[in-house]
Amino acid sequence: MTAYGLLVFDGAEELDFVGPWEVFGVSSMLRDGADSLELIAEREGPVRCNKGLRVLPDRAFGDSGGVQGSGGGAGRPEGLDVLLVPGGNGTRTEVGNDRLIRWLAEEAGRAEWVASVCTGALLLHEAGPAKGRRVATHWAFEEGLEARGGVTVVRDARYVVDGNLVTSQGVSAGIDMALWLVGRLHGRDHARRVRRYMQYEPAPPYMADEPLAG
Amino acid sequence: MTAYGLLVFDGAEELDFVGPWEVFGVSSMLRDGADSLELIAEREGPVRCNKGLRVLPDRAFGDSGGVQGSGGGAGRPEGLDVLLVPGGNGTRTEVGNDRLIRWLAEEAGRAEWVASVCTGALLLHEAGPAKGRRVATHWAFEEGLEARGGVTVVRDARYVVDGNLVTSQGVSAGIDMALWLVGRLHGRDHARRVRRYMQYEPAPPYMADEPLAG
Repeated sequence: MTAYGLLVFDGAEELDFVGPWEVFGVSSMLRDGADSLELIAEREGPVRCNKGLRVLPDRAFGDSGGVQGSGGGAGRPEGLDVLLVPGGNGTRTEVGNDRLIRWLAEEAGRAEWVASVCTGALLLHEAGPAKGRRVATHWAFEEGLEARGGVTVVRDARYVVDGNLVTSQGVSAGIDMALWLVGRLHGRDHARRVRRYMQYEPAPPYMADEPLAG
Repeated sequence: MTAYGLLVFDGAEELDFVGPWEVFGVSSMLRDGADSLELIAEREGPVRCNKGLRVLPDRAFGDSGGVQGSGGGAGRPEGLDVLLVPGGNGTRTEVGNDRLIRWLAEEAGRAEWVASVCTGALLLHEAGPAKGRRVATHWAFEEGLEARGGVTVVRDARYVVDGNLVTSQGVSAGIDMALWLVGRLHGRDHARRVRRYMQYEPAPPYMADEPLAG
């Protein structure tokens, strides 16, 4: 089984984590429910996302949660297989939240894969896992993240893999990254079946007469 | 202002409604918070989605909610500008829920736009708004929907517009449909700004060696 843990906090961007949640959930369903998905927050109770959606975390920091038998050897007892950190305006507050940053550093240290979407890279930089790495982030935050030092921001890739760290560009890019990850974990054909179930054959509107991005 | 109402129920598919929620939320943000977004459920309290995510509705059937001044003339007092219905396995139960079907028929009757994602078309067919119309739905449900009679399922379009009804294919297609809709409501350039904020330049992985769909 694969144990997925998705961090949420007030001001997390909805699609940043629900896109990957959908990918991981479909992946598990197609594997006969083999995997576990958890939304993890600092505290119990509703979390209010950046565009107002309210979600309920499955566990709070410190709860051991329902993760059982998740791969880890002695180095990562009860660790997650995939730890995912979304972005959103809430990251600007949480980057100064010592408890959350310490939790991230600890969980990332024993996770098999560490992932972020959008400005979630800011939290992984502060916590350590993105230090000295090549990362992707939201286009409007590339300079800001690089200015914090000790990180190389890749500007022309939808997601970037560096060791066991995979980081994506803004909001919707987490879907592509998560599909890549389930393919890495469970095979390309499996990832295609997930994409087929989600009918992910994107066709953004209003493209034909659009000027190139400046 | 534009008043968006997104129906949720146990077993609704997460990305079906969170994709459009993100699009509508970004659209409102870029319009200085002009619009209102509500998650609407039959009852108060947590709703458990198809892949296990728990969300809190903003109002229940019968609550008038926070919708104010939403466009409607005498024909749709307090009506929504956009009513969106997601799919998911929960639709198989809800199609027999008389209270939900009656609510849908009533709200759809006074909404400016009625939308569905994935198998949400089943509920709009049962409630009436999709009867006699051309619709899109999830690829695995096209025959099943058509067999219910009085509806034309379009198999080769990501989303289908028929009058004030717009229906999309499965799960991820709601993002494209919602972008089309905010462009229809607030202009093509606005829709492009929404897409740019969401960094929606999709790049699904594992495409290069994939056979054509059978």
